Amino acid sequence: MSEMIRAIGCDWGTSSLRIYRLGDDGVVVDRREASCGIMAIEGDGFEAVFEEIIGDWLDAGLNAPVVLSGMIGSRQGWREAPYLECPADVGELVAAMLPVDLSRGRRVWVAPGLSHLGEGGVPDVMRGEEVQILGALESLGDTAALVCLPGTHSKWARVESGRVIEFSTYITGEIFEALRDHTILGRMMTADSWDDGAFLDGVDRSRMMGGLLNHLFGVRARGLFGELDQRSAGAYMSGLLVGHELASALSENSTAEIGLIGSGRLVEHYRAALFRAGRTCKVLAPDIVAAGHWRLAQELTQRGYC
Amino acid sequence: MSEMIRAIGCDWGTSSLRIYRLGDDGVVVDRREASCGIMAIEGDGFEAVFEEIIGDWLDAGLNAPVVLSGMIGSRQGWREAPYLECPADVGELVAAMLPVDLSRGRRVWVAPGLSHLGEGGVPDVMRGEEVQILGALESLGDTAALVCLPGTHSKWARVESGRVIEFSTYITGEIFEALRDHTILGRMMTADSWDDGAFLDGVDRSRMMGGLLNHLFGVRARGLFGELDQRSAGAYMSGLLVGHELASALSENSTAEIGLIGSGRLVEHYRAALFRAGRTCKVLAPDIVAAGHWRLAQELTQRGYC
Repeated sequence: MSEMIRAIGCDWGTSSLRIYRLGDDGVVVDRREASCGIMAIEGDGFEAVFEEIIGDWLDAGLNAPVVLSGMIGSRQGWREAPYLECPADVGELVAAMLPVDLSRGRRVWVAPGLSHLGEGGVPDVMRGEEVQILGALESLGDTAALVCLPGTHSKWARVESGRVIEFSTYITGEIFEALRDHTILGRMMTADSWDDGAFLDGVDRSRMMGGLLNHLFGVRARGLFGELDQRSAGAYMSGLLVGHELASALSENSTAEIGLIGSGRLVEHYRAALFRAGRTCKVLAPDIVAAGHWRLAQELTQRGYC
Repeated sequence: MSEMIRAIGCDWGTSSLRIYRLGDDGVVVDRREASCGIMAIEGDGFEAVFEEIIGDWLDAGLNAPVVLSGMIGSRQGWREAPYLECPADVGELVAAMLPVDLSRGRRVWVAPGLSHLGEGGVPDVMRGEEVQILGALESLGDTAALVCLPGTHSKWARVESGRVIEFSTYITGEIFEALRDHTILGRMMTADSWDDGAFLDGVDRSRMMGGLLNHLFGVRARGLFGELDQRSAGAYMSGLLVGHELASALSENSTAEIGLIGSGRLVEHYRAALFRAGRTCKVLAPDIVAAGHWRLAQELTQRGYC
């Protein structure tokens, strides 16, 4: 590559790592991926792995800011960057970033996660998603918006004027797997089959009386009555869970624009469920995190940290 | 035993069996219990097991009606007694009972389960609980009441003037176990520890914004912030789940009397959660099912079936 390296962004999570080489104006000019998430690194092996994967980029871009986000900043990571309380913007995120000095004499920066105290003082946390959200801000404009990151632990953040105001986590993906693999409901379904109509039936049901615990039993009762076959039951249960997540996340935010960050089938399911609830959304690829890294890198430079 | 046998009632479930010998006025004069639930019976071995356990009672009470309830009437049981649609009273239950003729020339009767079509036409089912509810009716008087049977699949029934009007099932107990044993939340808790205060904190939280999927993530976030220790996290999660069940079950029934059928710690937890929600309840032991058997036996006799 002959392009100048203007910044390097690294999203280092629990199970994988994605690194972006950013050129002029933050354009992604190269991208590397590896399966060595922080859980796969033994002891203080982080620097060695990092050097192995992008040592050549560090050589080539001697003055480029290097920004790391994700679980790499957790207690189990390279350096713990404590959670920053919402509301927070790019300036506050950068002020809370922590430096790590490499043996080669280079300094890299680790982003903090975000925390938010919800009703009753109950905390919520994210780590890594905040940089994806930061990257999404430009695409969503300056008005109030919601950003959803569906997954094992889905995140919904409310953003406004470049700030993450508040957010909530929903344990939707993990509960789906636990129910499918370890309850009587799972025995009603064939793994990995899908049925769009059944999914939307579940979304519709989630808006009715009874609550989630009652609606979930309906997977079994409908199966007993022959209303739901093995190939459709999993999609129906997914629709119930996603529908309940949406109902909670949208209850107070009835008109804000929605950005949906992700890819593949899961995002299509969320888009369909949102549409069923009368909402449209803008889908953004997970690589939007590189735009967040770019904003952090620019801010680091402006503040003279790099 | 020298007392007359006026009826025999048998509650034969998935994992166990309880049999009651009823004397004058339906008083329980003897009781036997066995672990041979229907899942433990091979092929058509039901009659042999039944004879082995209470053959002597059948010999002694030659004219006593014999009533069976529970999963014994399911497709996997002795004889399938189809679900009876709510509302239903004792007369309709008896009219839907099915006879089984024993080789010794004796006829016994199997009770049906109940079904109920909820909002959106989604079915719900119970099998066995309806006879406990029938037994509870006398203790609750003739006015409108709610009957709760907490457990793996908790049941809430609305009864009025001797009829089961409608009911809902909540998958509370089973989801608790799946979450504790198979998600990241379970890693935050010590199995079998308990904390009354944390349980009530969970009940309180269930009444706040966010919904169950968000509240459950709070188990993890509070643990990360040191607000919830290993010994309290399980009780807190239980409080969240029971609280959500109660909120759904009570939402439309704000003043009805509440009967709670069960025993041990679980019932104490439900009673405490109800009290926290400003509701009192009458606790009835599971053996109340024998009062239900007695009512069915009386009705069978009056109709000349026995």
